[in-house]
Amino acid sequence: MNLTLLHADQKQELQLRLDKARYNMAMAEMDAMLIGAPTNLYYLAGGVFRGYIYVPTDGDPVFFLIPPSKADSPLTREIRKPEMIADVLKKEGCDMPRRIGMELQDLYYSEIQRLHAIFPGSELKDATPVMRRARAVKTDCELNLMRQDGLRQTAVYSEIKHCYREDMTDLEFQIEIERVLRRAGCLGYLRVSGNKMQLNMGSVLSGPNADAPSPYDFSMGGAGTDPSLPVGASGKIMKPGMTVMVDMNGGFNGYQTDMTRCWYIGHVSDLAMRAHQCSIDILRDLEKFSVPGIRIGDMYKRAARLADDAGLREYFMGHNHKVPFIGHGVGIELNEMPVVMERNADPLLKHTTLALEPKFVIPEVGAVGIENTYVVTDDGLSNLTELDETLKQL
Amino acid sequence: MNLTLLHADQKQELQLRLDKARYNMAMAEMDAMLIGAPTNLYYLAGGVFRGYIYVPTDGDPVFFLIPPSKADSPLTREIRKPEMIADVLKKEGCDMPRRIGMELQDLYYSEIQRLHAIFPGSELKDATPVMRRARAVKTDCELNLMRQDGLRQTAVYSEIKHCYREDMTDLEFQIEIERVLRRAGCLGYLRVSGNKMQLNMGSVLSGPNADAPSPYDFSMGGAGTDPSLPVGASGKIMKPGMTVMVDMNGGFNGYQTDMTRCWYIGHVSDLAMRAHQCSIDILRDLEKFSVPGIRIGDMYKRAARLADDAGLREYFMGHNHKVPFIGHGVGIELNEMPVVMERNADPLLKHTTLALEPKFVIPEVGAVGIENTYVVTDDGLSNLTELDETLKQL
Repeated sequence: MNLTLLHADQKQELQLRLDKARYNMAMAEMDAMLIGAPTNLYYLAGGVFRGYIYVPTDGDPVFFLIPPSKADSPLTREIRKPEMIADVLKKEGCDMPRRIGMELQDLYYSEIQRLHAIFPGSELKDATPVMRRARAVKTDCELNLMRQDGLRQTAVYSEIKHCYREDMTDLEFQIEIERVLRRAGCLGYLRVSGNKMQLNMGSVLSGPNADAPSPYDFSMGGAGTDPSLPVGASGKIMKPGMTVMVDMNGGFNGYQTDMTRCWYIGHVSDLAMRAHQCSIDILRDLEKFSVPGIRIGDMYKRAARLADDAGLREYFMGHNHKVPFIGHGVGIELNEMPVVMERNADPLLKHTTLALEPKFVIPEVGAVGIENTYVVTDDGLSNLTELDETLKQL
Repeated sequence: MNLTLLHADQKQELQLRLDKARYNMAMAEMDAMLIGAPTNLYYLAGGVFRGYIYVPTDGDPVFFLIPPSKADSPLTREIRKPEMIADVLKKEGCDMPRRIGMELQDLYYSEIQRLHAIFPGSELKDATPVMRRARAVKTDCELNLMRQDGLRQTAVYSEIKHCYREDMTDLEFQIEIERVLRRAGCLGYLRVSGNKMQLNMGSVLSGPNADAPSPYDFSMGGAGTDPSLPVGASGKIMKPGMTVMVDMNGGFNGYQTDMTRCWYIGHVSDLAMRAHQCSIDILRDLEKFSVPGIRIGDMYKRAARLADDAGLREYFMGHNHKVPFIGHGVGIELNEMPVVMERNADPLLKHTTLALEPKFVIPEVGAVGIENTYVVTDDGLSNLTELDETLKQL
């Protein structure tokens, strides 16, 4: 069992995360939450375990552990199945909540049905946005973990060019990068929100494959090599005149940074060079503009306007298929709140972590542009993935 | 778009799968199903796409595609959002179903709520068991794909010993195996059922780490290297006297075989040798016993009895933590129906594919035993992962 945050030295951090969750619970008018998604268990306990966390608006949370996870501290109780939660709460004198929050966007229908039956008189509310909002704004401890991720991911990215050999396929190139990442400590598992994004360790896109739409919700597509997993590298040889976009897993410690760099083979068109420079220009602009309090949708608007001004609208965020966002929150999951899209009217909050990825797809050539992971500070965006951004020859 | 099965040459296969799904729908008393989980979309269409499939008990199914997936055949319709499904069905003269099946164990609560609102008068039933039962018994086409998986996985396994170097950690060993698998065409993504099994490409367990329980539902545990992903390799050096169990991803073509082989370093205890031989003996016994019609729970009972007779009960299917099954269905997902556990009273069906993994955990030494993937035939089990099974020195 790894309830590390329940140990004394990290108790303060646990309390901070709980407070953030509770603030958002209050806004959502809930009396308690029952949390069961691995991501949120990890957030609130410091380790994934088998079980649930009951979080009332007042009083201590209760950690319900199902074997082989073991109750090992004052706040933990061992149960064999979720139905035993009600008895434990009653025995300890807890009132049944009038309104109970559960993760309606993270747990399957059948599990929510089963959990709601524990609180038959309670109105069911959605705890997913509560936890997503809490997690969007990082604590200092989380920012430190993400800074470490950024250092480790950039160290690997600085070695990527050594993975390349002439006449390699995109997939062969990706496999060598996977190995270097894994040897550097990347956990290999890509934690995403939702059950409709499937990918192993990331994406390498080259040539026309960058323009193949994917049914998944990633910013860029790719046909993949099999209809069961239609995304990413195609298994085709990377040829002179093509760009190669590397957007691989930056998860080393439970958190992750998200980072993209591009290279080209042989030579590359001026159009691709210009579009790549436009991506860099957009990031420089947004790094200054994006201070706490601005409207998130305005970040998208500025990026789109710069792409327009450069005459690159046709290629911006895809060509055959465009996605309506230029970035997203990132942390425990790859796709956290907020989404940086035009209609997002929320204000940007301090210590939000954002992956910004203004990219372009140039037909036949491939994708260009970069992606960095940032922390929102009073002075603008602070870059966790600082590394040469130029489009260079492989 | 990869609706490969909608192309003429594979139409017969599509029809066969539909018929199997409909047979199980009739047993479950549904008038229609609306399918949305990637696994089941892939099963019924031959490719993952963005959208849903409406399957009435009579008449043609309708494939609803959301861009970038494109309607490209007589049975497909393009929609922008699921709410448009009702209008399309009405326009085409379909009656609203009295009882609608949806995947209550594969889709999140919020998505089912949204989909159920399309059929406000329809009773909601669970389509998950319907699709799981249909998929448990494979078609000839599926068996061919799994045979190919088996050949490719065994080819890689026969090279595993070359990945080993003295004083390697379990994780370093695993990373080299991952690379060989990927270069041999393994898709890398491990498709599992449920949102509480998280793993990248498989598990390498060595020494005391094999006895560390994991909160996930895999047959063997392991502490992992981080509390965010508590399973599998520990990052510790593999030493003389330890066994090394390799249970890595066998998914090459949308289907997967599941296979485990073990090695030891330096020397190994007689107890470990005996337990490994017992695993082989159990499989030889079950290969003959497991013909269509037997009670699945009896397979578990025979295995447990053989372990008992050998005086190995204490180590059978775990030591600190035991799992109550010795095998599971396998195909598109790693964990399909049926589960080979004592209380499973279902009869074994012909052309079910099963991964059988009678394993033992020997304290301090590690895990031993093997796992093969089999097809149920009239003559017993036919092995898709045939390769030397002995416990050998690395």
